[in-house]
Amino acid sequence: MSIATRATELLGVEHPIVLAPMGDVSGGELAAAVSRAGGLGLIGGGYGDANWLTREFDAAAGARVGCGFITWSLARQPDLLDVALERDPVAVMLSFGDPAPFAERVRASGAVLLCQVQNRGQAERALDVGADVLVAQGTEAGGHGYGSRTTLTLVPELADLVDRRGSEAVVLAAGGIADGRGLAAALTLGASGALVGTRFYLAAEALSTPQARDHAVGATGEDTCRTTVYDIVRGYPWPEGHTVNTLGNDFVSRWHGAESELQRDLGNAAAEYRRAVAERDYDIANVFVGQAAGLVDSVLPAADIVTDIADRAEVILGGLVR
Amino acid sequence: MSIATRATELLGVEHPIVLAPMGDVSGGELAAAVSRAGGLGLIGGGYGDANWLTREFDAAAGARVGCGFITWSLARQPDLLDVALERDPVAVMLSFGDPAPFAERVRASGAVLLCQVQNRGQAERALDVGADVLVAQGTEAGGHGYGSRTTLTLVPELADLVDRRGSEAVVLAAGGIADGRGLAAALTLGASGALVGTRFYLAAEALSTPQARDHAVGATGEDTCRTTVYDIVRGYPWPEGHTVNTLGNDFVSRWHGAESELQRDLGNAAAEYRRAVAERDYDIANVFVGQAAGLVDSVLPAADIVTDIADRAEVILGGLVR
Ligand SMILES: Cc1cc2nc3c(=O)[nH]c(=O)nc-3n(C[C@H](O)[C@H](O)[C@H](O)COP(=O)(O)O)c2cc1C
Ligand SMILES: Cc1cc2nc3c(=O)[nH]c(=O)nc-3n(C[C@H](O)[C@H](O)[C@H](O)COP(=O)(O)O)c2cc1C
Repeated sequence: MSIATRATELLGVEHPIVLAPMGDVSGGELAAAVSRAGGLGLIGGGYGDANWLTREFDAAAGARVGCGFITWSLARQPDLLDVALERDPVAVMLSFGDPAPFAERVRASGAVLLCQVQNRGQAERALDVGADVLVAQGTEAGGHGYGSRTTLTLVPELADLVDRRGSEAVVLAAGGIADGRGLAAALTLGASGALVGTRFYLAAEALSTPQARDHAVGATGEDTCRTTVYDIVRGYPWPEGHTVNTLGNDFVSRWHGAESELQRDLGNAAAEYRRAVAERDYDIANVFVGQAAGLVDSVLPAADIVTDIADRAEVILGGLVR
Repeated sequence: MSIATRATELLGVEHPIVLAPMGDVSGGELAAAVSRAGGLGLIGGGYGDANWLTREFDAAAGARVGCGFITWSLARQPDLLDVALERDPVAVMLSFGDPAPFAERVRASGAVLLCQVQNRGQAERALDVGADVLVAQGTEAGGHGYGSRTTLTLVPELADLVDRRGSEAVVLAAGGIADGRGLAAALTLGASGALVGTRFYLAAEALSTPQARDHAVGATGEDTCRTTVYDIVRGYPWPEGHTVNTLGNDFVSRWHGAESELQRDLGNAAAEYRRAVAERDYDIANVFVGQAAGLVDSVLPAADIVTDIADRAEVILGGLVR
């Protein structure tokens, strides 16, 4: 038994579950495990590092995987896309920035083009450049995002947009989906599947540290907040309006809302942050999970997560109709 | 055909659809129309005005309806609860503040007690005081709210909480639900139904003005934002942390983020606001709808809205299982 959708067909997978390309977290081993379990694993290309990307594609050991990039960062080193395309990825996902400069090369390679968007305007743009998949990301998502649209309203609004344009694009829901209930909800809302980050942050094969996972497992959805302090301290020039969803901790309490002071004390704060990352001290360092953290209370192998989400979604959808 | 849930049983209704008690919008005529169509109509008691409440219960003309109050405001005139209870309401909903002082009287009257909550701590409190229904409100909702939890993650987290406590309480989802897709999603997430505001703001029987509805019908979900400027200008002492979701317009652009200037210029701004309300000038006055505005493109009789939501949810849930 399985849930067949336009996404499973397009991506050539059994379950409509895609691993989010979480930078530094979704490595080749995790991506391969998700793909082998019947989902689609995307390696997290993040800000872009050719050596890292090559290593992680190697670690996927021939599994059918794809990868994702932070678009504005890829624009600063566009050749990195070739490193990915040489590995014959099933799919390439572009997030946070204009996909136009890369869309053609991705599609010409035969890879499926996913564009992650946070509002209607971005969705229009992605459709204009030929995205095969719109990933509709709500503000409850872990990691970076833009604006305040939530998954529950963005997904149907974009599904309507796709219909109105007569487009063939497929919609995936991203943000807040951690179990079969969330996948079932995504499908009822008009998506053809879900892109899942936070739940896989807590997969055994993820590159997240055990200490970071401990913090996330104990969290409720209220323990996350959207902020720019980690980007300031890391020196990443995120375009205006982007924030990252992260677990609250001492560091966030101290600097969130005090960003100009943080800028003034940047040397010290950056040193403290780097030390904390090295020491895995998550009262200071970042744990970029979303509100779905409140729905996860254990670390499991990725294959078990895929099966749990898919099976439970099916049971729920079957059980609601008599 | 209809969707039977624990909520339809508890509330004695055909469809698991509850009209949100929108202050100044959900009058007796709208509440009665929703109830007669098989949902449950709640009159919007708002900040509390005995004459208004009496008039609107009269306008419900004997239909099986309930009502809702803003809890912190009810605490300043607790006798108003008697005005409501004398009308033998099916249900009383309390939102925004500690329900403890009123819970016992509501339950002793035989009315179903609904408590609207925005996070896990508030939900625990509501269960402690004996709420029959937890209304899990996400940040995409129209009108007032607290914090940044979204419906998609709050509903399953509270459903898990209710289970863990072995409570009999029923969960309703509120925020972002405007059509059958949203109701179906609410049910898959573990809710037993939905409380709907924005869609009914656009019902023919609502007390919203035609001019306000025109603005809302043309909006996308990105056109709303959460702010305190309307509470400042109206002089309502909302407790810390509460914001209202409203359509963006000239007034919001001018004052949102400039709240201390607004405080300093309060006399002028308040006069301008009052004039705009009187003149139905919604470039200045408020249109308190949520992100679901992007899903609604017409004004319909309430009965048609109830039927549309219920029927479409059923078709969706039926169609997703083969
Ligand atoms: C730890 C973490 C890192 C992320 N890094 C990226 C990234 O590098 N590129 C990207 O497109 N999305 C990134 N995201 C966002 C995901 O693509 C996705 O939108 C999100 O995880 C979905 O919401 P969820 O976390 O509730 O499942 C990240 C998410 C997390 C949790
Ligand atoms: C115009 C408007 C006024 C509202 N006024 C109240 C109110 O007085 N009391 C209350 O408990 N909730 C109020 N709400 C919030 C609703 O109870 C409910 O949470 C919300 O409408 C659900 O989200 P939706 O608007 O996306 O359907 C109001 C909502 C709207 C749209």
